[in-house]
Amino acid sequence: MSMQTGLIFHPYMKPGRTARQTFDWGVQSAIAADKAGFSSMMISEHASQRWENIPNPELIIAAAALQTETIKFAPMAHILPHQHPAKLAIMIGWLSQILEGRYFLGIGAGAYPQASYIHGIKGGDDTKFLNDMVRESLQIMEKIWKREPFFHEGKFWKAGYPEEERVEEGGDEQHMLADFSPWGGKPDIAVTGFSFNSPSMRLAGERGFKPVSIFSGLEALKSHWDTYSEAAEKAGYTPLRSNHAVSQTVFVADTDKEAKRLVMEGPIGYCFERYLIPIWWRFGMMDGFIKDKGASAKDVNLEWLVDNVFVVGSPDTVADKINTLFAKAGGWGTLQVEGHDYLDDPSPWFKSLELISREVAPKIKLPK
Amino acid sequence: MSMQTGLIFHPYMKPGRTARQTFDWGVQSAIAADKAGFSSMMISEHASQRWENIPNPELIIAAAALQTETIKFAPMAHILPHQHPAKLAIMIGWLSQILEGRYFLGIGAGAYPQASYIHGIKGGDDTKFLNDMVRESLQIMEKIWKREPFFHEGKFWKAGYPEEERVEEGGDEQHMLADFSPWGGKPDIAVTGFSFNSPSMRLAGERGFKPVSIFSGLEALKSHWDTYSEAAEKAGYTPLRSNHAVSQTVFVADTDKEAKRLVMEGPIGYCFERYLIPIWWRFGMMDGFIKDKGASAKDVNLEWLVDNVFVVGSPDTVADKINTLFAKAGGWGTLQVEGHDYLDDPSPWFKSLELISREVAPKIKLPK
Repeated sequence: MSMQTGLIFHPYMKPGRTARQTFDWGVQSAIAADKAGFSSMMISEHASQRWENIPNPELIIAAAALQTETIKFAPMAHILPHQHPAKLAIMIGWLSQILEGRYFLGIGAGAYPQASYIHGIKGGDDTKFLNDMVRESLQIMEKIWKREPFFHEGKFWKAGYPEEERVEEGGDEQHMLADFSPWGGKPDIAVTGFSFNSPSMRLAGERGFKPVSIFSGLEALKSHWDTYSEAAEKAGYTPLRSNHAVSQTVFVADTDKEAKRLVMEGPIGYCFERYLIPIWWRFGMMDGFIKDKGASAKDVNLEWLVDNVFVVGSPDTVADKINTLFAKAGGWGTLQVEGHDYLDDPSPWFKSLELISREVAPKIKLPK
Repeated sequence: MSMQTGLIFHPYMKPGRTARQTFDWGVQSAIAADKAGFSSMMISEHASQRWENIPNPELIIAAAALQTETIKFAPMAHILPHQHPAKLAIMIGWLSQILEGRYFLGIGAGAYPQASYIHGIKGGDDTKFLNDMVRESLQIMEKIWKREPFFHEGKFWKAGYPEEERVEEGGDEQHMLADFSPWGGKPDIAVTGFSFNSPSMRLAGERGFKPVSIFSGLEALKSHWDTYSEAAEKAGYTPLRSNHAVSQTVFVADTDKEAKRLVMEGPIGYCFERYLIPIWWRFGMMDGFIKDKGASAKDVNLEWLVDNVFVVGSPDTVADKINTLFAKAGGWGTLQVEGHDYLDDPSPWFKSLELISREVAPKIKLPK
């Protein structure tokens, strides 16, 4: 089995883009990724970030639903503390039915305290509190998806499911309940992690969720697999590397030189200089990359990242780079390519997606 | 100024339709109504009803956003007690931006106790309790739309808006807040009413909301305008009949005979026999229609409704019927045509929409 390709769409739009441009670019990206043979598109949910400016991934998923054929969509992630679990459970069920199963569900606790504050949570950096909310929300959603009567009065929410009224002989159907349970009964669930020894990866193993690693260097990545697979085995699940997705900054063009130029001078470089390099320092991801390469902090700039951290080049070069990563880290099932803002000229980006899917991925073999 | 035409989409799908069929029909209907020159499409939100099986109107609106030109969309209505107001406020703002203003917001308290129960409200028939929730939700949303710092700890929800962090000279932009305030600062808001002396119509007048009447007979309709306009004048708003929308069951074909046959034998008749006739009895709407015509309960069947309550016929007949209603009730700005499930053969339905918009509406003059 070869590696699968996916897109992860945050979407890193240049500040100044309108909501319509962001939305349009999301729909265009979904259609292009589907045509290129991508297996999945993950879309972030953020209420506060100017560069990550999609508060409702479900709207882009809905807009692309009828215009795509095989790609699966996932919010990555719905921030469970920010919304009523019953409302969310019904929406997830309905959308997964609309997509006839081309759907899985990313869940998260929220990483940005300002977004938590908007939704009434002052302790937006209190991980334990947020995780308690995630746990209660998930419990409620799982009950609603079963469509059996219950009423829950919890620490954070109330929710329930009513008794179905009996339809009398010859009576009308007006009070029969609509069925908004997810396609297949319940959705596959995914969680992301980026830190060393990530608690999300442990949760994924314990609960049989799909692990998604935001690439933060080899050591963190290896620890993700170790943490996940150990927890999975303990819980009685078989950990499969084919189920593991890893995000990366990837760009492919006909030649190495052209690929590097398009990254340095294009939207990826623009975003890293202004947004992601500072974020990577702040969240500690840069330290992992520096350690991998035995570099020092003063070496780090955009070009160093392009040469040492991103996966950029011709199809052959990129296949080599990924195979090298596979040899060191053990490999994974889906390369989740980080989306960027190529709205002004989509052609090099869509060509890159095509090359990644058609030329690179078939050359990457999954380990057993 | 002539009467405008709109669609109201509940959507009265035959039980057995899949979610994808319902969604697809919603998107098709939006595109067809836009092409026919309809000014608005309202879409219901229900978590419990098999015949009214759209839990998230925003998903259909999003899917139609890039494929329509001039039509405005409205959820009619978002059920405010069922969701976190901050989450909803952000979504509304973002969607209204995506539509670049082709959006207005229907709000409601929820009419079906089973749907309230799912969302944790046992007193789903306690109107006062639900209206308290609506009021608090709206207060929170209005504050979030202003984007000024606050923190609200209310009876039902907590929510806030953070201080914008200062961007230092040369610093990164990562914590600048995304702007998800609605197009134009705040959305136009609409409410529906159907009963005599409707409290929704009073609220519309008091708050400057758009009044939408679900047609329930002439007396109720006249009382809607009286209640609305009196409250509006008291609050300092100028009540305009052009701002009033009235829903009706309308079907137009080339001849009266053909129109009646298509209604009796088609999806409208199917839905009324099985769902809406029982609902209309239960909700008391049938009493208004009977009174209007000096009929008695035993006269009521589908054919009686087609001849006496619905607006069905050739373009000239339908224009006459609406002008007669205008003379009796005072007229209104938008005829909101009730959508039905013509998915199996959309052509007579889409032709009817074209005839209503192009042939009938220009013949209906608004009163001053």
